[in-house]
Amino acid sequence: MKIARFRAARRVAFGVVMGDEIVEIRGSIYTRFRLTDTRYPLADVNILAPTEPALIWGPGLNFAEHLEFAASVLGEGADELPEHPEPWHKSRNSLTGPNDPIIIPKDSSGDVHYEGEAVAVIGRNCRRVTPTDARKYILGYTCGNDVSERTWQKKDSTFWRAKGSDTFAPVGPWIETDINPQELEILVRLNGEEVQRAYTKDMLFTFSEIVSYLSQQVTLHPGDLVFSGTTGTTKAMKPGDKVEVEIPGIGVLSNPVEAEFDAAAQ
Amino acid sequence: MKIARFRAARRVAFGVVMGDEIVEIRGSIYTRFRLTDTRYPLADVNILAPTEPALIWGPGLNFAEHLEFAASVLGEGADELPEHPEPWHKSRNSLTGPNDPIIIPKDSSGDVHYEGEAVAVIGRNCRRVTPTDARKYILGYTCGNDVSERTWQKKDSTFWRAKGSDTFAPVGPWIETDINPQELEILVRLNGEEVQRAYTKDMLFTFSEIVSYLSQQVTLHPGDLVFSGTTGTTKAMKPGDKVEVEIPGIGVLSNPVEAEFDAAAQ
Repeated sequence: MKIARFRAARRVAFGVVMGDEIVEIRGSIYTRFRLTDTRYPLADVNILAPTEPALIWGPGLNFAEHLEFAASVLGEGADELPEHPEPWHKSRNSLTGPNDPIIIPKDSSGDVHYEGEAVAVIGRNCRRVTPTDARKYILGYTCGNDVSERTWQKKDSTFWRAKGSDTFAPVGPWIETDINPQELEILVRLNGEEVQRAYTKDMLFTFSEIVSYLSQQVTLHPGDLVFSGTTGTTKAMKPGDKVEVEIPGIGVLSNPVEAEFDAAAQ
Repeated sequence: MKIARFRAARRVAFGVVMGDEIVEIRGSIYTRFRLTDTRYPLADVNILAPTEPALIWGPGLNFAEHLEFAASVLGEGADELPEHPEPWHKSRNSLTGPNDPIIIPKDSSGDVHYEGEAVAVIGRNCRRVTPTDARKYILGYTCGNDVSERTWQKKDSTFWRAKGSDTFAPVGPWIETDINPQELEILVRLNGEEVQRAYTKDMLFTFSEIVSYLSQQVTLHPGDLVFSGTTGTTKAMKPGDKVEVEIPGIGVLSNPVEAEFDAAAQ
């Protein structure tokens, strides 16, 4: 089942995607809901980021093939295989939806990269769960783009702006509840050309392991998001580009790239 | 004016503290409100963390006297005077209110320290503001305790659990709107004994400078919190302790310290 959050007729609602239609639901996607008689053509609604998370987590380095590249950004030591996740969080202001622009800050060096990822959506309050039990607390999976400004990532002590600037966390288009999260393929296209391909079977820590590890110290709440981490090397995006993260079986997260409007330069 | 969030008669409301009473308000503390006729003795209500923030920011090292201590935890380089704030964020799950317990995680080394701080409360959406304008976006100030597990702070790549574990961000008791934020005294008492004293005039970056710097890349929202940073050296708290952060002119944030209930050990 594909669960989307959308705006139509000036209201925000949740719905189930069926073919090229979306059927509005009544109730909570996290507990119990029923389908209503209200349905819209998908093309007529504005699909939003699928949840309103309190927290958006990343697992730290989670693909062996990303370690060498990470070391070139973060310095030596980053290329050693981690013994456990090294969680961090993208700040909430960075969340943005499908088709919304990724905005290159005017004071950025311009070295702003895509990172195509799969994203777990927490479905229930979750604290001190085992890896085996963790999947019961995950509602489903969606696509995410862990947009990263590499100059700030190198220079700053934290990722606050390198990965947390406004619009740096596109997520969507919807939550697929019936899919094996460790058998996903993640494709990234920049202006239609494939630039990244990853397989969640290569994650050093599975979603269940990351969620379990996080939950030892942190209560996760319904709607919280957990990114997979990214693989390989990445490239910069430029204003005017279109970036797509596709996970077959889930969908395509597409975002245009824009320069920040600079009032002072007008 | 002192604005508090509280629970009384099973409802959560905001109110203005007047002497030993709290007068419930109607409206929004961020835009416009009026006093109602409903008032409670302060002793009869449950004072909560004063806002429901999306983000809880720290400025990084912000007191010259904390740099040497920080270097002993974080390694060399941390003792150099910073050229700009190095923001990071405590995760939302760590937020807790006055009189709620700080819980020492059962898998912690036990080296869990207080850090008494002043906290700015954002009052309006805030993006790319100058240091001069920033104070217009701040509603007021309260007390905060940036609880920190020093072993995890040393060992991990990020502060996710060192400073972001559940209950590691006590904030309150209320927001004082009429006070000079750079002329505050911050006292910490552990079981009644003074263990830390700081002056916000010694902040390397003022609240206005931190908020301005953050707002260059991050939209701050009403209720978001910005900690001052801490000074000097700190000590571990033990289960059974009581820790108080007092800022004269604002109030006292008091929290008991407890060990995590360990079902497996019963």
